[in-house]
Amino acid sequence: MNTVNASIITIGDELLIGQTIDTNSAFIGQELNKVGVWVKRRVAVGDVYDDIWQALDQECKQSQIIIVTGGLGPTADDITKPLLCNYFGGKLVVNEKVLAHVRHLFEKVFRRTGPMLERNLKQAEVPDVCTVLHNARGSAPGMLFKREGKIFISLPGVPHEMKGLMRDEVIPRLLKEFKMPAIVHRTAFTAGQGESMLAELLNEFEPALPAHIKLAYLPNYGMVKLRLTSQGNSKEDVEKEMLPYFEKMQVLVKEFLVSSEDENLEVVIGKILRARNKTIGTAESCTGGYIAHLITSVPGSSDYYNGSVVSYSNQVKENALGVGHETLETAGAVSEDTVKQMVKGALQLLKVDYALATSGIMGPGGGSEEKPVGTVWIAAGSKDKVETMQLHLRFDRQRNIAMTGGNALNLLRKFILSDPD
Amino acid sequence: MNTVNASIITIGDELLIGQTIDTNSAFIGQELNKVGVWVKRRVAVGDVYDDIWQALDQECKQSQIIIVTGGLGPTADDITKPLLCNYFGGKLVVNEKVLAHVRHLFEKVFRRTGPMLERNLKQAEVPDVCTVLHNARGSAPGMLFKREGKIFISLPGVPHEMKGLMRDEVIPRLLKEFKMPAIVHRTAFTAGQGESMLAELLNEFEPALPAHIKLAYLPNYGMVKLRLTSQGNSKEDVEKEMLPYFEKMQVLVKEFLVSSEDENLEVVIGKILRARNKTIGTAESCTGGYIAHLITSVPGSSDYYNGSVVSYSNQVKENALGVGHETLETAGAVSEDTVKQMVKGALQLLKVDYALATSGIMGPGGGSEEKPVGTVWIAAGSKDKVETMQLHLRFDRQRNIAMTGGNALNLLRKFILSDPD
Repeated sequence: MNTVNASIITIGDELLIGQTIDTNSAFIGQELNKVGVWVKRRVAVGDVYDDIWQALDQECKQSQIIIVTGGLGPTADDITKPLLCNYFGGKLVVNEKVLAHVRHLFEKVFRRTGPMLERNLKQAEVPDVCTVLHNARGSAPGMLFKREGKIFISLPGVPHEMKGLMRDEVIPRLLKEFKMPAIVHRTAFTAGQGESMLAELLNEFEPALPAHIKLAYLPNYGMVKLRLTSQGNSKEDVEKEMLPYFEKMQVLVKEFLVSSEDENLEVVIGKILRARNKTIGTAESCTGGYIAHLITSVPGSSDYYNGSVVSYSNQVKENALGVGHETLETAGAVSEDTVKQMVKGALQLLKVDYALATSGIMGPGGGSEEKPVGTVWIAAGSKDKVETMQLHLRFDRQRNIAMTGGNALNLLRKFILSDPD
Repeated sequence: MNTVNASIITIGDELLIGQTIDTNSAFIGQELNKVGVWVKRRVAVGDVYDDIWQALDQECKQSQIIIVTGGLGPTADDITKPLLCNYFGGKLVVNEKVLAHVRHLFEKVFRRTGPMLERNLKQAEVPDVCTVLHNARGSAPGMLFKREGKIFISLPGVPHEMKGLMRDEVIPRLLKEFKMPAIVHRTAFTAGQGESMLAELLNEFEPALPAHIKLAYLPNYGMVKLRLTSQGNSKEDVEKEMLPYFEKMQVLVKEFLVSSEDENLEVVIGKILRARNKTIGTAESCTGGYIAHLITSVPGSSDYYNGSVVSYSNQVKENALGVGHETLETAGAVSEDTVKQMVKGALQLLKVDYALATSGIMGPGGGSEEKPVGTVWIAAGSKDKVETMQLHLRFDRQRNIAMTGGNALNLLRKFILSDPD
C-alpha cells in the first residue's frame, strides 16, 4: 500500500518570532499518525500573502493532504480566507448555516446583547468552492477543498476549536477519502539513565532490527523514551510482528524501565496507587507546586492525591509541616534532614500513606559556595521508612524545576514499588 | 536596508508525529528577531535523508540564513552530520579541540569511568569544510557552513545546548556577517476581554496606522496580547516613531490593560508586591498547584511568595485550612463560602498579606446537574476583605486549569491594586 503523505502549514508571524509555541502542529501530527497518515513536512509561514500562497504550491507537490491552521480569527490581520478563495478560484458567500451558528454563539453562549459586530458576521462568509466543516466550539468554520485528488483543509488556530474539528470532521472525512496503511508505534519509557548508555545496552539489538522497524531515542528531563515504529497493511499484523522486538528491547533496559506505554510518570504512579488503594501527598519547596500540578493533571487524581504543602518560606516549613527550627538553622532548608522532616509533616497533615518532599536551589540566585545553584534534596517516605536522594543540576531555573520533578516522581515510584505493603 | 531572511529547519520524526513539541524553533525565532533577522519560514522534516536534503535546497532559495537543529545526538538514528558533510562536499575528520572537550565532559562533568564509548568519540568528527561552534554544554558541536553568501548553521536539538550555542556563537557571528535592519515589537497585555471586543475598541486606530506598522492580536487563555511591529534603520528611530501609536493603543484599551510589557501575570504581580513590600500565599483545590508553579517560575519569587496549601481533598481543606465541615457538607467544596474560608485559612497558616483560593470541577468527571464540569469559584482577599468570582468554563481539563489560573491571578492583581494599603 502506498503511503499517504500530509503537510501541515501553520500561519502567523507570532510563530516565526517565537511569541507563540506551535502546539497545534503536534496535535494534528498525532491525530493523522494514529490513522496511518505520514506527516512529511510541517511548515510555518508569516501573515504574508505570497508566502502562504507559495507554501500551498510547494506542499501540494509533496503531499496528498494539506492542512492549514491559523489566520481565520475575527481581527483584521487575517488574510487566509480571501487567499484560499482566490487560490481555489471561488468567491466569498454568506453560508446560512454558519450564520445561524455564529448568531447562536453570540447570543446564547457568549450571552452578548446588542447587534452582532460586522467582524463576527464576516465569519459566516466562506468560499463557494469549499465544503464547510462545522466548528461546534467557535465562530470560524473549517473549510475543505479538493483539487487533483488532493485534499486541502483550513482550520482555525484556536487550539480547542482546531482539536474539535480534527476529531469530529477532518479524520472521519480523510478515512473515507484514502486507504491508509497501518502505522504502529510502541514506546517504552525509561528513567535514570542517559541516551548514550541506553544505546550501549541496545548496541546489538538495534542493527538486528528488520529495515522497516525503526528505533528512536527521545530524551526528556532525565527520562528517555524508546520508540519502535513500523507500518504495513493491517494494524494487527504490524503489532504482531513488532511485539517480540518490543519485548526484547524492554528486557535489555529492564533496570531502567518505567512503563511499556507512552505515558508520563504521574500516570504510572496513579495506576500503582489505584491498584494498591493507597494515597499520596507532597511537600514542595523548590519545585513550588510543579509536582502537585503534574499529579493533578491526571483526570481522577483526586482518588489518590490528597494535596500538597508548598512550603516556599521557612516559616511555612515550620508552621505547616513541623520542620524543626533548629534543623533549619543548622542544617539549612536545603538538607537531608529538612526533606525527611517535610515528609513526616506531610504524612501527618495530609493523612496519606506516602509523601514526597523537595528542597533545593533552582537559580539563578540563591546559591552559595557550600550549596551552589542546582543543589537539591528529595525524600520519599511512609510512616515506617524514608528514602532520600541528592541532585546536582546545572541548567536554568525552568529546567532545574522540571528535572527535580521528574527525579522526585521516579524516587516516589520506586519507593512505593519496593514497599512490601 | 534589505531584510535579512532566515529559515529554521528542525529534524526529527518525533516532531512530525507530535511526540515532541517544537520549542526550539520558537527560541531561535526570538533570538533572530531581536537582532533584526526576519524568520521567513520554519520547516520540520523527518529523519529522512532526501527530505532533509530537499529542505536545504528549498530554504536556501528563500533565506540568507538557514539554521538546522536536531539529528546530532549520540544514537544511531542521527543522519544529519554525514548528510551535511556530503551536501557541502567535505569529509568527516576528527577535530582535536572537540575531542578534548568530549573527553573532558565524559571524565569530569559526567564523572564516567572506563573507556569512552565509540559513539561518544564520534561526536568529535566534523566535516572539514565547516567552522566548529563550541558547545560548552554538551558533546555535539555546532557547525557553520558558507556557500554563495549564505550561512548554514547546524545545532544539536537538546534545548539548553542549542540555546547556549545560539547566544554564545551564532548571534555574534551573524551580527558580523550581515547588516540588519532594526525590528521593534511593543506588546501590551490585556485581560478580561476577548479579541473581537478589543478589535472594536481599536476599529479606528488600526486602519489609521502607517502601512509599515502592523498590529497583531494574540489571544491566550483569557488574555490577549496586542503587538505592534515595525522596522527601520535604527532601533531608536523606530521606537520613537512607534511610541505615540503604542501609547494611544493603550489608552483605548485601558480598562483591560494589565501591562505595557510582553510579560506574564505572575511577573506583573511579583513587581506590584515587591513595590508594596507585601506577601502572598495560595490555597488551591481545582488548580492543584498550577498557580503556585506559575508564581514560583519567576526568579526571586521567594521574596514575596510564602507558599500554598494544595487542598485536593476535603479533609485537607478542613485540617490545614480550617474550612468548616458544615460548609463542605451543605454548600459543598465548590462554593463561594468554601473559597472564602480557604482564603482565611491561607492568610493564617501561611502568614501572608494576601491570599488567593480556587475550587472547581475541571473534568472530564466529577460534574453534576447542579454543578457541571467547568463550574469554578475563585476568591482573593486580605484580613479585611474578600472578593469572589465564579467561572463557567467549557474546555478540556488542561485548558480549564489554565483558564482558572489566569482568571485567578487577574482577580488577585486587581484586588491588590484596589487595596488602599
